[in-house]
Order: sequence, then C-alpha cells, then structure tokens
Amino acid sequence: MTAHEDLWILTAQCPSRLGTVDVVTRSLAETENYVFAMNSFDDRATESFSIRVELRPLGGQQSIERFCAIFEERAAAFDMQWELKAPDHRPRVAILVSKYDHCLNDLLYRYRKGELAMDIPLIISNHPDLKPLADWHGIPYFHLPITPETKPQQEAELWQLIQDHDCELVVLARYMQVLSPDLAAKLDGRAINIHHSLLPGFKGAKPYHQAWDKGVKLVGATAHYVNNDLDEGPIITQGVQSVDHSHYPEDLVARGQDIESQTLARAVRYHIEKRVFLHDNRTVVFPD
Amino acid sequence: MTAHEDLWILTAQCPSRLGTVDVVTRSLAETENYVFAMNSFDDRATESFSIRVELRPLGGQQSIERFCAIFEERAAAFDMQWELKAPDHRPRVAILVSKYDHCLNDLLYRYRKGELAMDIPLIISNHPDLKPLADWHGIPYFHLPITPETKPQQEAELWQLIQDHDCELVVLARYMQVLSPDLAAKLDGRAINIHHSLLPGFKGAKPYHQAWDKGVKLVGATAHYVNNDLDEGPIITQGVQSVDHSHYPEDLVARGQDIESQTLARAVRYHIEKRVFLHDNRTVVFPD
Amino acid sequence: MTAHEDLWILTAQCPSRLGTVDVVTRSLAETENYVFAMNSFDDRATESFSIRVELRPLGGQQSIERFCAIFEERAAAFDMQWELKAPDHRPRVAILVSKYDHCLNDLLYRYRKGELAMDIPLIISNHPDLKPLADWHGIPYFHLPITPETKPQQEAELWQLIQDHDCELVVLARYMQVLSPDLAAKLDGRAINIHHSLLPGFKGAKPYHQAWDKGVKLVGATAHYVNNDLDEGPIITQGVQSVDHSHYPEDLVARGQDIESQTLARAVRYHIEKRVFLHDNRTVVFPD
Amino acid sequence: MTAHEDLWILTAQCPSRLGTVDVVTRSLAETENYVFAMNSFDDRATESFSIRVELRPLGGQQSIERFCAIFEERAAAFDMQWELKAPDHRPRVAILVSKYDHCLNDLLYRYRKGELAMDIPLIISNHPDLKPLADWHGIPYFHLPITPETKPQQEAELWQLIQDHDCELVVLARYMQVLSPDLAAKLDGRAINIHHSLLPGFKGAKPYHQAWDKGVKLVGATAHYVNNDLDEGPIITQGVQSVDHSHYPEDLVARGQDIESQTLARAVRYHIEKRVFLHDNRTVVFPD
Repeated sequence: MTAHEDLWILTAQCPSRLGTVDVVTRSLAETENYVFAMNSFDDRATESFSIRVELRPLGGQQSIERFCAIFEERAAAFDMQWELKAPDHRPRVAILVSKYDHCLNDLLYRYRKGELAMDIPLIISNHPDLKPLADWHGIPYFHLPITPETKPQQEAELWQLIQDHDCELVVLARYMQVLSPDLAAKLDGRAINIHHSLLPGFKGAKPYHQAWDKGVKLVGATAHYVNNDLDEGPIITQGVQSVDHSHYPEDLVARGQDIESQTLARAVRYHIEKRVFLHDNRTVVFPD
Repeated sequence: MTAHEDLWILTAQCPSRLGTVDVVTRSLAETENYVFAMNSFDDRATESFSIRVELRPLGGQQSIERFCAIFEERAAAFDMQWELKAPDHRPRVAILVSKYDHCLNDLLYRYRKGELAMDIPLIISNHPDLKPLADWHGIPYFHLPITPETKPQQEAELWQLIQDHDCELVVLARYMQVLSPDLAAKLDGRAINIHHSLLPGFKGAKPYHQAWDKGVKLVGATAHYVNNDLDEGPIITQGVQSVDHSHYPEDLVARGQDIESQTLARAVRYHIEKRVFLHDNRTVVFPD
Repeated sequence: MTAHEDLWILTAQCPSRLGTVDVVTRSLAETENYVFAMNSFDDRATESFSIRVELRPLGGQQSIERFCAIFEERAAAFDMQWELKAPDHRPRVAILVSKYDHCLNDLLYRYRKGELAMDIPLIISNHPDLKPLADWHGIPYFHLPITPETKPQQEAELWQLIQDHDCELVVLARYMQVLSPDLAAKLDGRAINIHHSLLPGFKGAKPYHQAWDKGVKLVGATAHYVNNDLDEGPIITQGVQSVDHSHYPEDLVARGQDIESQTLARAVRYHIEKRVFLHDNRTVVFPD
Repeated sequence: MTAHEDLWILTAQCPSRLGTVDVVTRSLAETENYVFAMNSFDDRATESFSIRVELRPLGGQQSIERFCAIFEERAAAFDMQWELKAPDHRPRVAILVSKYDHCLNDLLYRYRKGELAMDIPLIISNHPDLKPLADWHGIPYFHLPITPETKPQQEAELWQLIQDHDCELVVLARYMQVLSPDLAAKLDGRAINIHHSLLPGFKGAKPYHQAWDKGVKLVGATAHYVNNDLDEGPIITQGVQSVDHSHYPEDLVARGQDIESQTLARAVRYHIEKRVFLHDNRTVVFPD
C-alpha cells in the first residue's frame, strides 16, 4: 500500500479571507470526494492563502465533474486559482543542461525508477556532450549552441521547443546560461534552477572556491524558481553537506555535486507533486 | 511577529468517514473562526482521522462559544473526540526523574526561556539528588523513594500528587522505575518516556554498551508514550547521532545524553502544542 | 587542486605495542616519503593498532622502493600487516546484484564520474534483469541463476569469475542470495553488503514493513563486511532518513532505497580509499 | 572505559617540511610515551603542518620530562610551536555575555556535567541581567556597562580581569559588543565568538529577519575566532537547522538559538580539547 498512487491532488491559492478553507472542503464533501490528507496555510506576511488536498472521488469521474461544476463559481468569488491533478497525470518536463551531468543523471535515474512521476519529452543543451546519456534513456536531445550573437534566436527556438512539446515545467539542471528577462518572465513559476551555494551566501562565479577561501565547514545548494534577479528567485528547498580542512576546492565541487543533485531532485518532486505555492518572492512548501 | 502566540488550537480525531474535514471547517467558518493553518490525515491503515487547526476567533470569546455550541452535537455524530486549546492555556506537567539530570536540566531551560509553553507544578523523584536543581527553579520537589515493598504505596502517592496538582501530562525524564500496568493504564496517552536507543534496536539494560559491542556508527533515542509493553509504546519522535571507533561505551553514553535531551524536549513540545494523535499503537504527528 | 590525486596511501595494522607509529613514520622520513595526512588509532578494547598515511615520495619510485626495502623487516618485527597503494592503482571490484537496480545504478554513476576510483571488470547476477544497465556502461554481465540444487556449483563458478577477473573487492548491491559459509570465509574482509535496516534493529524479511508496523520515525541502512553471521558482519557505515505517519510500507521502501544507495557507496569509497581497518568483529574507520 | 580521561594531548604546528611527523613520533617513542591516537595534516594551501597526539606516558611523569627535554631543541629546529596538555589540566575560560542567556546556560550545563573540561573563574557582562544565573552556578559575575565614552576604559578593565584570572580562552556567548582592534589583537586565537548566521551569508544586524525575508529553508550559526574583521574570523565549526514558511522571524530566532548554543559549545570543546589549529585565516580541525 503506498500513500499517493490512487489520489487526486487539489491545490488552490488566493488572497487571505474568511471562509477559504471552508469553500474547498464543503465543495469536496458535497460531491463525495473523500479527503485523505490536507494542508493549508494562511500567511499573515503576504496575506495569502494556500491549500493542498489529497482526495479520492468516491463516485469516480462523476464526483470529479460535479466538484468542478460547483467549485468553479465559488472559487471565483474568492479570486482563487486552483488546479485538480489526476492520479495518472504526468507533467511534461523539459530539462536544460550544459556539460555537467550529475544533476541530469540523477533526475533520469529517479524518473526511470518511478520516483519522479513525470514525462521528459526532451532535453535541451547548449553543448553536445550529454547526448549519449539522453540517447540511452531514449529521450530526444536538442543541441542549441549559444553565442552572444545567436542568443535571442536560440532562446526563441528553445521557447518554441518547450511549447511544441507541451511542457509545463522546465528544469535547469546546471544549465550554464542566464535566461533573458523575457524568457524568465514567460517561465515564471515553472522553471526551477539549482544554485551551487546556500543562497544568499556565495553568488557569482566559483562559489566553492569562495567557500574554500573562507574555510567554511559546510557547503550547500539552493533550488529556486527562476526570475529576473539572477540566483535570487524564490527558494523551494536547500541542502547542506559538511566539509573540512582536508577538502581542497575541487573536493568541495565533488561534495557539492551530491547535495546539488539531491536538492534539485527534491525541488522537482515537490513541484510535480503540487507541494509548492508561490506568493510574490516567497514560497509555501508542504513537504512529505 | 511569531506564528502561534495568539492562536487557538483545535484538535479532533475519529474513525474514518466522509465529511470529517468538512464538519470541522464548516463549523469554524459559520462561527467566524479564522483558520491560519490546518493539517488533516486520514490513515487507511488504522481507518482513523486526525485534524489540527490553528485559528483566531474574529468575534473573540463569542466566536469560541458559538463554535462549541454548534460543534458539540455535530462532532458527536462522527464519534469525534475534540479539544480546543486557548492561546494562554499552559498545560500542567509533572516531571519524574531519578539521578540523571541531563533531560531535566534541558526541559527546565527550555521551559524557563519560553520554548515549552507549560507549567511545571512539581518534580517527583525516587532519589533526593536533583532537589537543588528543582529548588533553583523554584519548583516543589517530592522525594518518593521506592523499594519492591513500598512500590504500590509510593505509586499511589505519586498518582495522588499528579491528581492534586491537576497535571495533564507526565514526563519521565530518565525516570528509572518501570510504571506498574495499573499506573501506566491511568496515564494512557499522557505519559511520555525517553528511551536511550533507536527502538526497536537495543532493549533492556545498557543499550549503549550493546551498541558499542556491535560497533555501531550511529546511536539514537526514542520518545514514546508509556504503555504496558516496556520500551515499546507508540513512538512520538526519534533522534540520531553519529559515533565512531574512538568512542568507548562511556563516550556513547555522553553522546547519547545530548540526543536524548533534544528528542524528549521535542516530544514534549509536540504534545503540548497538540501535534500528536494516538491511534492504537501508532501516532500521527504534525510537526512544525 | 584536489587532496588525493597524486598521493600514495600506506596502511598498516598490528597488535598494540609501543613504537608502532614510530616505526612507520621513521621509515617514511628516512626514505624521503613526505607525509600529507596521517591517522592512527590504538584500540584499548581490541588491543589493536591501525594507521593510514597519505604520502608523496619526494624521490619518486626510488623513495617507494627504498621504503619497501627497509620497512618489510621492521614491520615483521611488529607482526604488522601493511599495504602501499599507488595513486593510479584502481582496485578491481566485482558487483553482485539481483533485481533491484538502485544501488547498482548509483555505484555505476559514481564510478563513471570518477568519485569511485575503481575498475568494474564484471557484474554478476542470479537474474538477467539488470543486463541492459550493465551493457550501457560496457561492463560484462554474468548471469548465474541459483536454485537450492545448483547453488554449490554456481557459487564455485562465481568464485572462479572473481578470481579470473582478479577482483580484490566484492560488493553485494542488494544481492538477494546468502553466501555459503565457505564463500563468505574466502571473501573475509573484502565483501561489502548493504542491509536495509539500522542493524541490529530489524532483521529477517521485510524490515521496512516491520518498521512501519512499529510506527518508527526514522529508517536506516547498514553497510557491513560479509561474515558467517547473516546480517551481522562488522559495520562500516550507517545512514538514516526521517519518515512519518503518511508513509506506508511501500513509501518506506522507496525512501530507504535512497539511504541504502548512499550508505553503500560511502562504504565502498571508504574501502577502496583504504579507510577501513578490520579487527575481529569491529572496524576502525578514518573518514574524510 | 572512556577514551580520553587519562591521556595527555600533544599538539604542534609549523611550516611544512619533510620530517615533521617523524620528529614528533620519534621523540615520543624514545621517551616511552605511548600513542593512542594521532592526526596530522600538512596543508598545501597554507604550507603549514598540524599534529595532535593523544598519549600516555608509560614511565609516568619521568616520561613527560624526558620528552620535553629532548623535544624542545628538536622542535625549535622546525620552528615548531607545541604544547603538552596534562589529563587533569583544566583551561580557565572567561565567558562574556550581554542579555541573551541561551548560550551561557548551555555552556554552564555542559560544564557542570563534565562535558566541557574547563574552569570558569568569571563571567563578564555589559548588563546585569544574567547575574542570577551566574550566582546559582557559584561563578563571580562582573558587570562592566559600556557606553561609547567608557568603552576604552571598560575594555582595559575587561582585559585586566582576564589577566588577573589567568584565562587562556575567552568565549563571547552572544556578547553584543564589538571588541576594539587592540583587544581583538591581544586575544588573537583565543577568543571564540558565535555568529547567528551561516557566514558569509547574512552579516550585520538581524540576520534572521534578513533570512526570513529571503524565504530561506535553512538557518545556521558559525563559531569562529575573533579577529579585526567583524564576523569574518577563522571558522571553527558551523551548524544548520531547517525552517519553513510557517516560521516568522521570531520563530527563526528561537530555532536559531538552539543551533547557536550547540555550535558554540562544540567550538569551545574542540578548542579546549586542542583540536583546532589556526594558520592565517583558516583552521585545521580534528574532530572526534
């Protein structure tokens, strides 16, 4: 028996107001949708409401349709954005990479063994290096080399590929290109990046070398949504790893790759399991 | 701004059934009680439902009274046990100790600085050793020495003290006496013990010596509710600490004391913040 | 600059006695072998001595030869077992698997990216399932199906393969066959197994189901040397992962696979980096 | 049996050079000092050598005296600074505090139960608030209020107190005054501060509020030696604690206090157990 395999997930968010929880749960109960787990949080700081429900429609598809029919109008009265994810829905995810393969390999492994319930219709890279890895997994690999001159044109191509393949999430798995503000805006809330530092610690180039220079005893990684503020988007999750004096910069890089892979995979899982809610520059995350 | 200081906490549990969440949230909304955070879990294994709500009565005391008035009957229809904890309610907690002071000192410190929002009307011990520590904190200390002959009589006295001081929780902070089945039954679900091992690992005497003998690389501690099955009550939380070859048994004991103190304090905090639900031999815990 | 890439590793162990450290370091200094890092431990419990030295021969191969020439006799006087590992020596490792692929995939990835400085001349399995994974990595895969009747013969074949391929380490990466006492004895101190529990917690079948039944809040894994006492060999390293009420047995299995993979990979790395010393049923481990 | 109670600790450091380890171990062996544990590290980055030895003089005090007699000259030839700490030597430690009591209470508890083998001849504060805590532990408390005008004079007094009480270590346990460059220089390498952030993350005032504003999922603390670069001294150890969206700034402060206390206590223990070596702005730490 596993926890989630046959459950629908309802998520909703809106400005804070009396009755937000009630309108959700009442609509579910009236339409015979059984609640197995629920989390809600009303943030006094951002005055925003988030709710996530794991449910089973006792009357099958009919319960779902009845819920949608009555909830649409009610939710609108609360300015509520909501989504209902079927148990067999697999979000389509585009992965962007450059030359480092540790995050890609980790994601593909977790995907292959079923830990990440998503489809990966394509991998896009500005380098050809990781094509054999994609090939072995049977995933189309698009090589879009980028120079300062070709960047606008290649980003347009990249955006076209994402649309053509109907991707709802883009994962930057150590993709070493900064997205243009325009593309970042188009991907708002649905592009996840991994930064190889505990933001806001070490920004810019070679954070592990900076960390080594300071003699840190911990290195970390931050998974965050991409926005226009480079390396400063809303944080989804962070990971940390201890190091010591015997680790030279290249050792920190190696240690960091483990924590980067794990942190990015966790962020992707949280996103596709609908555990992350974005309000301005802050996230609400209901972990398992 | 802190998260919890002005919030009421509603908890409820009952057998699994459609509508459990709805009856709670609807009753809250109707009586103008504002929900800030909510967790519910419906366990398919034990077919039981648990819910915890942090709320603020928009209409003050009147909202609370109106809620209690309408919810009592509704809850009864679900065989629901429920409690509503006021923000300023401080549960009264009796602490039982023997000679080890690490858990007691840790609890008293967290209590004194406000991390544990409880009152400690008394400390009871089968030894006089820790009286000075109790004295400094201004807490009455009752010395009830126990021999096989006097145990029934002293346990009766202990029970009387708990009742006289109106304690709703008893914490066994390395209390080295096994409670009789009768007393354990009276304290069912409201006595927390700390076991110095990762149950069900090393039972019986000297678990750290057993651990050392096996050459373990981790030692741990388990906080659990007391029941008649010695060291096997429902687990609330567990902690772990790494060790290595250089640690002799007495070193493991010292390392273990840190993780015992932290684990017990966390369990007590979860209990008094109403985060723990007990269903048969298993717990549902909504951590923060 | 990385810590280890150009360094030789000297390891030695013997019964406790005055002068053990001195005979090692003096012999190194006399032959112009430069010590970069050293750990020694003299265990009062087992009365045994272990030392590990990372060094660079200032006089190149000549320094190494001079050291070996003078140290052999000196070490013998202490009943010292010792080994000197060249920086470019890559131990040959046979991996044994059954059907689970999480540990194998993890090992192959770390091997491929250079984190595990070893060669894998072959993978042996009692099932054909993981052959495609071996193929992609270009590693010969030997399928030795085992029934009660064929076990002795197939174990003989397995042992022959290990010898033919000159393997100095055998890794049981969720190999679901118990080795016979005879084979276990032949592989004494050079076969590593991963057990999916925090030994000595849950032995026998389905430890995650046992753990779930007890309502544990932590699951773990133990990497240990194989010996004749099933699941009770000397522990190399252990890992732990938190779980909660929402995790059903199959969820624990999934969570456990992550910690199994990490724990086994760490044990293998410790072994091939010569960080583990075995004295009777206990290990001394000098981690990085 | 505990690991350390009857052992002497020898520490030494000097510029990197062939023979550093040998001169130490040879001198110990010649004088019948038995080595139980040893760690050395030769840092290619700072070209410095550090060694720590736990030993027992087989010939008692005579072995110690003979060692000192022959080692003094030999060490000088390597420009080696060295110290030999007797098992019963308890370093004298002055603790500086302001109003926060969490670190002080934690240090006093660990001191009282024997985890920190030191003496605390005095506590110094710029506020009177924590005097009762000092009184209960029977430790003299000196109140040195500081204003911009009186700072030089009070720092002179503080320095005098440290000297009069013969303190070899000063612990700033959330002491909210910046030491003057002059006093910092006098205390170089023997004053430990706790910073309530994972340096170099959030410097300056209210790091937890900064952290909350960024929506971090981890908070941390850094224990470091005091130097003239505020909050940037050589790092001894760091700790980390997970947080989430439900934690408002004051909750982060509370969570952070736990990790501050633990991190500072660990740094103090490392220092008094002679595990920390300072080379320029970086430390070598041999943990247990």
